[in-house]
Amino acid sequence: MKIDGVPYRTIWVNDDQWSVSVIDQTKLPHEFQTLRLASADDAACAIKDMVVRGAPLIGATAAYGLCMALREDASDASLDDAYTMLAATRPTAINLKWALDAMRNAVKPLGPNARVAAAYERAAKICDDDVEICRRIGEHGFKIFDAIAKSKPGKTVNVLTHCNAGWLACVDWGTALAPIYMAHDAGLPVHVWVDETRPRNQGASLTAFELGRHGVPHTIIPDNAGGHLMQHGQVDLCIVGTDRTTASGDVANKIGTYLKALAAHDNGVPFYVALPYTTIDWTLDDGVAGIPIEQRSAFEVTHMTGRTDAGEIVTVGISAPGSAAANYGFDVTPARLVTALITERGVTPATRDGLLTLYPEQKNG
Amino acid sequence: MKIDGVPYRTIWVNDDQWSVSVIDQTKLPHEFQTLRLASADDAACAIKDMVVRGAPLIGATAAYGLCMALREDASDASLDDAYTMLAATRPTAINLKWALDAMRNAVKPLGPNARVAAAYERAAKICDDDVEICRRIGEHGFKIFDAIAKSKPGKTVNVLTHCNAGWLACVDWGTALAPIYMAHDAGLPVHVWVDETRPRNQGASLTAFELGRHGVPHTIIPDNAGGHLMQHGQVDLCIVGTDRTTASGDVANKIGTYLKALAAHDNGVPFYVALPYTTIDWTLDDGVAGIPIEQRSAFEVTHMTGRTDAGEIVTVGISAPGSAAANYGFDVTPARLVTALITERGVTPATRDGLLTLYPEQKNG
Repeated sequence: MKIDGVPYRTIWVNDDQWSVSVIDQTKLPHEFQTLRLASADDAACAIKDMVVRGAPLIGATAAYGLCMALREDASDASLDDAYTMLAATRPTAINLKWALDAMRNAVKPLGPNARVAAAYERAAKICDDDVEICRRIGEHGFKIFDAIAKSKPGKTVNVLTHCNAGWLACVDWGTALAPIYMAHDAGLPVHVWVDETRPRNQGASLTAFELGRHGVPHTIIPDNAGGHLMQHGQVDLCIVGTDRTTASGDVANKIGTYLKALAAHDNGVPFYVALPYTTIDWTLDDGVAGIPIEQRSAFEVTHMTGRTDAGEIVTVGISAPGSAAANYGFDVTPARLVTALITERGVTPATRDGLLTLYPEQKNG
Repeated sequence: MKIDGVPYRTIWVNDDQWSVSVIDQTKLPHEFQTLRLASADDAACAIKDMVVRGAPLIGATAAYGLCMALREDASDASLDDAYTMLAATRPTAINLKWALDAMRNAVKPLGPNARVAAAYERAAKICDDDVEICRRIGEHGFKIFDAIAKSKPGKTVNVLTHCNAGWLACVDWGTALAPIYMAHDAGLPVHVWVDETRPRNQGASLTAFELGRHGVPHTIIPDNAGGHLMQHGQVDLCIVGTDRTTASGDVANKIGTYLKALAAHDNGVPFYVALPYTTIDWTLDDGVAGIPIEQRSAFEVTHMTGRTDAGEIVTVGISAPGSAAANYGFDVTPARLVTALITERGVTPATRDGLLTLYPEQKNG
């Protein structure tokens, strides 16, 4: 997508043909900076520190991390070490593991001399495939927006989203935001309620940033507000992304997603989850019991970074000194609260049968 | 309650016998400052700017505002003007109106010469009554904590609260926090999950502050986290305050309360609301349709004030520049999601019949 008229992806190989650059998402929305990653360690740090985030982009970054490890040492031991280190960066997103497995499967059978070129080729394909997958999610999701718009001619279609599942979370387009971009570009009167998404405010800083740069009307709201809006008919649908989807349709997404799904259910508002097939964990059924939930630093809760009127970026303590804080990264929304899943293959109920209809090749899996 | 060993109320008459002082709650938790109010205008500004907040304290402050207006001019016109101005400061809290009505009823029948003394006497009684009411709420609520503690001997009783319904919201003790203080003081192993309560962070700044100063174990969490904790058995009960309670038991409280009530309901966690009778609006049944919801400045959402490492208090912009923000102050939790109401007269179902059992004098109201 474009920033100030310049088309960007979130990750790309530099002119040196081996290092990669990413948009430093910890600096948004205050500064637009790119960061060069020149080793597997750099890639791991970028993932851990959330310079890059979003399940698809985490996978793509890990893939290039593996490329750079192999460039330094293409042995089996190097491959295994880099795989292990990169896989440990974030515990919840399943397609981190998917991307690393895809990379390992592509290079392991080859001799060391052939591994580096094959790795870069496979990583590039992961990125290109992700763009195409997101485009298809957008096309399938667009039909939902189109139907709602037709059901209330001349009126705004209000959609609520949580966290950032936009192009900044992917390589391009986004998952949950792809249908929104397509609806907006097609001239539908879309307005987005953007949950600010504490504690890291990915909604207020990333989703609002990318919607604003693309010209999509939107309003930032505290995470507390969605229930009130739904009670008063101001939300036509919710659409969010996911970091891991169980085979039965449970969805692990940014902490607080479950609360919005409850409110949607209580008010008859449809609740959609957009995902590439790479986030499906076919080995898991019960998401609440089975998906590991990352716990992050209390500092992210007790402190906040922003920009002063003078333009200085400052971090301030915002809570009572001496009080402890807890920081769970994700929660799990049970499938019973999900109206439907939107994947690159279509829209389907959040059930095992629904998923198997789209992915029949998993029936014997 | 005590701050650094010194007993405080949240509002008191100064040695001059007519002006009042309050704790400036906009400065907490970073600085402990008191502010002198010397006119009805001062009182109105203190309420509007949330120097004082919490339904009972708003009522007490408005009462003293009326005293100071009468001290300047004890005429009927002055009384009516001050009543109107003070009543308009916050639209949702019903006991603002209750306190002003109580004041007007006490002074209107008197001649101008007698009004000032009577007003100060009535305002003092509003404060003393509030302390006694909160103490009784604490005693009734304590029994709930005691029963839970006995059901899981030796284990921590985890309670989740939203916003600040502690002594800082009242004159002393608090409503939702009164039972927690009593349980802690009685030696029960209580731990409080404190919702930070965006956008003004009353939880992280006020509730955490007062619990910490009293020595009650607690952990600040983002507003997004409560559902996850309840899914995993880490919350034994929720208890919140209310700014207005309908005759049928619907509850208007700080925005986001409804989402926690939904999560509690979904996970079989009891959800209690603590209130003095002054927050009951006997004229209303349907809270979602009938209770006016205050909308506040977008600046409270897009900016955040905190303390730098150097000790400087700084306000920073935290969201994408140019993005709009919406700021609804309250939401309404339907009675069906409330396990019981805890009032100064006891614990009762959140129904008209339940409330009338405690307040039979309203049966002919």
